[in-house]
Amino acid sequence: MTKSVPETEHPVKAFGWAARDASGHLSPFNFSRRETGDDDVRFKVLYCGICHSDLHSIKNEWGLSLYPIVPGHEIVGEVKEVGSKVEKVKVGDKVGVGVMVGACHSCDSCKNDLENYCPKMILTYSSTYYDGTITYGGYSDTMVVNEHYIVRFPDNMPLDAGAPLLCSGITVYSPLKFFGFAEPGKHVGIVGLGGLGHVAVKFAKAFGAKVTVISTSPSKKEEALNHLGADSFLVSREQDQLLAAQGTMDGIIDTVSAVHPILPLFGLLKSQGKLVMVGVPDKPLELPVFPLITGRKTVAGSGIGGMKETQEMIDFAAKHNITADIEVIPMDYVNTAMERLAKGDVRYRFVIDVGNTLDGTKPI
Amino acid sequence: MTKSVPETEHPVKAFGWAARDASGHLSPFNFSRRETGDDDVRFKVLYCGICHSDLHSIKNEWGLSLYPIVPGHEIVGEVKEVGSKVEKVKVGDKVGVGVMVGACHSCDSCKNDLENYCPKMILTYSSTYYDGTITYGGYSDTMVVNEHYIVRFPDNMPLDAGAPLLCSGITVYSPLKFFGFAEPGKHVGIVGLGGLGHVAVKFAKAFGAKVTVISTSPSKKEEALNHLGADSFLVSREQDQLLAAQGTMDGIIDTVSAVHPILPLFGLLKSQGKLVMVGVPDKPLELPVFPLITGRKTVAGSGIGGMKETQEMIDFAAKHNITADIEVIPMDYVNTAMERLAKGDVRYRFVIDVGNTLDGTKPI
Repeated sequence: MTKSVPETEHPVKAFGWAARDASGHLSPFNFSRRETGDDDVRFKVLYCGICHSDLHSIKNEWGLSLYPIVPGHEIVGEVKEVGSKVEKVKVGDKVGVGVMVGACHSCDSCKNDLENYCPKMILTYSSTYYDGTITYGGYSDTMVVNEHYIVRFPDNMPLDAGAPLLCSGITVYSPLKFFGFAEPGKHVGIVGLGGLGHVAVKFAKAFGAKVTVISTSPSKKEEALNHLGADSFLVSREQDQLLAAQGTMDGIIDTVSAVHPILPLFGLLKSQGKLVMVGVPDKPLELPVFPLITGRKTVAGSGIGGMKETQEMIDFAAKHNITADIEVIPMDYVNTAMERLAKGDVRYRFVIDVGNTLDGTKPI
Repeated sequence: MTKSVPETEHPVKAFGWAARDASGHLSPFNFSRRETGDDDVRFKVLYCGICHSDLHSIKNEWGLSLYPIVPGHEIVGEVKEVGSKVEKVKVGDKVGVGVMVGACHSCDSCKNDLENYCPKMILTYSSTYYDGTITYGGYSDTMVVNEHYIVRFPDNMPLDAGAPLLCSGITVYSPLKFFGFAEPGKHVGIVGLGGLGHVAVKFAKAFGAKVTVISTSPSKKEEALNHLGADSFLVSREQDQLLAAQGTMDGIIDTVSAVHPILPLFGLLKSQGKLVMVGVPDKPLELPVFPLITGRKTVAGSGIGGMKETQEMIDFAAKHNITADIEVIPMDYVNTAMERLAKGDVRYRFVIDVGNTLDGTKPI
């Protein structure tokens, strides 16, 4: 294997799996990480969830990818070293890292604990760090992260099933709270029952809201009602079901990342209801304006959450026994997992057992 | 002329101009109005603005028209008779009627002074009234309206230049207030400088906001800055101008009713900025989701305002000397005015001098 710059630019050796080009194929990869700075936390990666964004990124489907890419932004591990100024955690603590590892810390968003909306937000992987080097994610043996972006993992939160909450959990928790759906008496629709949707149902129920799952697949009804605890289920292509629920919802969280019609969703909303997109279709959707105007309705977007809120989310999840439903896989299964994820063949999140199955001693 | 049902169904003779089919051609029309009920106000129509909705309606471009249509929902007149329970106005008072004349008065929207978002809201024309008859608008000699939908016209508000505020004024005033743009220190963009846009600039400036007009026509710069008092002007097709203003606006009011790209507008918004549509394109717009998510941005719709807020708007306008810029026309010019309106050839609102030029004594 040819030595690449990433392996030599930092002093600390690291090992993971990377995609080298838009084929998205992942394979073993030697690289390097910086030394533990005064504000840094170094931890051994134990588990890392596979987010749909990982699939988009390794295939460069958003056109923003910087190769080589070590994906992974639902990372849980055990602290091995802390910098001299670190106060949040100590060696041996269980910690999590989500979608971001840096921001400007001076803009309005940062000042309001919304680093996730900082224009200079630095993603956990395939982004450019303060020092100009590329960031690498959690499909790797070790991470070094500024303590601001470290989440303290609650004692009773399972490390594997808790990992996906660091992205999928906060992605739905934040809009449920911000847009006012997270209250008893509110009726919230959750569109799509995948990695995001199934967690959204759990949080919305824990908040006391009435929850309706909206899906294209009638086959998910049993799962939605009996396993996840939704109050009702609606097949989005059935006109009579849409009509029966017309004007009943305060808000809808739309987790679908495929292009899909949103006009039927407007019909489900009450006057002044809000449709919040958290899935990212790669092409524009059709926006009919008349239904927005006649009920002062809103379409908004929401992307993950700030660090303060992420900690709040994981503490709330621990208190209410909310975890993701996962399938734990070994590291060398990751390419197969990506193929299955592309087909929607996972219930509901893959989590890589990095700690036990990433073997840097094997010849690569 | 054949007697039509509208002429005979109510006891009081009325006269106006109506469109009989989707050609949209307007011609003299005999019809009837109900007697003045206990809660009703009868007034002689003096002026009526021509709203772009009138054009859409007479040509049935929204597919909702009930013919014959007597358009007009920016109506100002003088009270001639009041019902026994009317408290709001007395004979001789100047009054206005806007877009609606009824609602259910029991739903959440109605209870919150938002009759405009009541699912049973009754439009001033081409709508079905409580009694099952069709409503007729202000291109007519007389109106009878429940006092709840009567606006008291302030003494110092010109009857002609004030009339358009009953629709165009409240349409922009309400979202400027509701979405929090109506404050000193806020930067608001106004897209389109027509009947709605020119009034939006005036209200936003009166609220103390910084105002940028966004237009496709560089020729409107002089007008926007020097006549209407906008702080800056931006040509929406000029990439360098868009870039220079990127991320600077708290909100944008989009008054354009033609299909147009909204992606460049998202770029102008700050994180958490809001794009509010008040124009009604007849085809869906393209909604790119990624820019919404990366800044928790919003696209919302807003349609006119409730009666309480409409009164507040007209009182505010009177206090701040805000009126529409108008071209007063005689009734028999209305078909020509519609042709000019379709081409955008009006600065900025036609107002029909109904009181002096609608002559019901001429043979028709």
